[in-house]
Amino acid sequence: MNEQTFSYEQLYQFTHSVFSKMGCSEADATIATNTLLSADIRGIDSHGVARLGGYVRLWEAKRINATPSIKIVHETPSTAVVDGGAGLGLVVAPFAMQLAIDKAKNVGTGWVSVKNSNHFGIAGYHAMMALEHDMIGIAMTNASALVAPTFSVEKMLGTNPIAVAIPAGKEPPFVADFATTTAANGKLEILQRKNADTPIGWVQDKDGNPSTDANALKKQGALLPLGSDREHGSHKGYALGSIVDIFSAVLSGASYGPWAPPFPAYIPMPENMPGEGLGHFFGAMRIDAFRSAEDFKSNMDNWITRFRAAKPADRYDRVLIPGDPEREMEAIRMKEGIPIVQSVINDLLEVGESFKIQLL
Amino acid sequence: MNEQTFSYEQLYQFTHSVFSKMGCSEADATIATNTLLSADIRGIDSHGVARLGGYVRLWEAKRINATPSIKIVHETPSTAVVDGGAGLGLVVAPFAMQLAIDKAKNVGTGWVSVKNSNHFGIAGYHAMMALEHDMIGIAMTNASALVAPTFSVEKMLGTNPIAVAIPAGKEPPFVADFATTTAANGKLEILQRKNADTPIGWVQDKDGNPSTDANALKKQGALLPLGSDREHGSHKGYALGSIVDIFSAVLSGASYGPWAPPFPAYIPMPENMPGEGLGHFFGAMRIDAFRSAEDFKSNMDNWITRFRAAKPADRYDRVLIPGDPEREMEAIRMKEGIPIVQSVINDLLEVGESFKIQLL
Repeated sequence: MNEQTFSYEQLYQFTHSVFSKMGCSEADATIATNTLLSADIRGIDSHGVARLGGYVRLWEAKRINATPSIKIVHETPSTAVVDGGAGLGLVVAPFAMQLAIDKAKNVGTGWVSVKNSNHFGIAGYHAMMALEHDMIGIAMTNASALVAPTFSVEKMLGTNPIAVAIPAGKEPPFVADFATTTAANGKLEILQRKNADTPIGWVQDKDGNPSTDANALKKQGALLPLGSDREHGSHKGYALGSIVDIFSAVLSGASYGPWAPPFPAYIPMPENMPGEGLGHFFGAMRIDAFRSAEDFKSNMDNWITRFRAAKPADRYDRVLIPGDPEREMEAIRMKEGIPIVQSVINDLLEVGESFKIQLL
Repeated sequence: MNEQTFSYEQLYQFTHSVFSKMGCSEADATIATNTLLSADIRGIDSHGVARLGGYVRLWEAKRINATPSIKIVHETPSTAVVDGGAGLGLVVAPFAMQLAIDKAKNVGTGWVSVKNSNHFGIAGYHAMMALEHDMIGIAMTNASALVAPTFSVEKMLGTNPIAVAIPAGKEPPFVADFATTTAANGKLEILQRKNADTPIGWVQDKDGNPSTDANALKKQGALLPLGSDREHGSHKGYALGSIVDIFSAVLSGASYGPWAPPFPAYIPMPENMPGEGLGHFFGAMRIDAFRSAEDFKSNMDNWITRFRAAKPADRYDRVLIPGDPEREMEAIRMKEGIPIVQSVINDLLEVGESFKIQLL
């Protein structure tokens, strides 16, 4: 596969210029760029600059407002609902997560559900905002329907990710960030480019039969909930995806389930949407609202050290802690640059041309 | 398999008498009985009276205190840590969940982490306590280590269940309650009694190879996290089980990971335990801390109706909502009685004999 390597600074300049040309304020362009590129540096290539063109097309279609009025529409000491004003999720989400953190400072925890937003990048970035405050951070979002519930052939849920970031002391933090499906859609896209099959258990065909077709989604097939099939617990993955949908969208008044707005701007909006835009859900829990942060972090160091020392099976080197692969990738990419595949480069060149911005 | 059917009232009388003879107060015996039997009526046979003998043996071994001093050891407006005083988890958990509900009444949400407790029955029972208050309820617990993290052969985590109960309007509530493993340990026990194999993906052998041996755990094998293997997302099930362990035990100061205390009283306690007893975590979120409960419940009715109407694959009747199977089982068992297998009856007869209580 053809690819070219870019430095973080190159991608930063380009992305920031694109958001500025869309009309974002200087502050918002900076927040959106930081959020978006956190995916590329952590190795989640499907959620970084690969999506920049998609955001631009949503803005062109007037589904994204570059100068949104982001408002708190309801709140209590520990909760709020935020109306994202149809803004970039990349900007709305950090606002809402910061609000959760502020509430946690006051009453121990903060929980914010968001409506009228758009795709927010990687969930892990928002959850990790809590870490520097000695808080546990939680972030989730609903997304357009690609996933069939257990027993169904109809796509009803998005890949609905959950991220949880937990601070440690000397050890790096525990950062879990995962789609509630067996495989993320980005993994299918990689196989499509290679013309390769998926393992059984990732997708089903239009009749609900097991399939290995990486293009199954384009043929009325569906992604499968974590667990793959009933015998292997797909009803649990279906429940998890549902909880994310309800916390993000029903609790806020966003559009849920099969009515979640699509990311590709060429797909028409669903009819009879029951709420406004996409939904997110954020949580922040102050560690010292439970016990001394020092004791907690010392126990977390012990937890992490012990799990990392768990005996691996012969064919594996070591046992990983959630967050290890992304942190290791970040260290490499900040030094060696970020490889971008040619199809994404072509899309970025097109975006650059329309805004008269040079990619290099 | 030999079994006999008992009415709810028969099991109630017997169980209540056993807890009373252990020295529980009238109030605690009632709470413990309600909690324990909620498993039997909902069809979670592994977590109901089948465990009563186990609780008695833990009490005999002085690992359970029938008259515990349950204390709030730290709190903020939205959080608390509870010390369960080595009491029955069946009693400690409802205390802590009620505390979460009370805090939610005041500041919108309540979050309670518990240490120094024991096995708490089914997580769903505690989460469902929130429903009548128009709140979302969340419950989870750590448990003794039976599960190997992805890439590992060592058992490091319990089956660590998560329950989330969400109120609806005219529709019954959404109630998810699941172990963060591919299969719960209770399902292995059923196969052991039938001398049958497990599907691939439930357990691994002592070297970390895929296995179909329902007795694998007795041969240094392990249960697998939800997802079964790396290719099917077991790192997500491992992350979920870890989050439950950390929220329940590290946040409270209970004993975590491989040091979680065992349920069978004949297994020695782990050495160098880093905390006190088993840990739980509870949450309650007031719906109207986010939006009007009426609007939310009307949207939930729409969510449930729409998902129930999702097109099933030809070989299935219908798509289920989390909580449907257990609610349907409860309706049947309250009418027709609760079937108990002979091995459990024998254990109950033994318990009854030691306390001079008749089972029938």
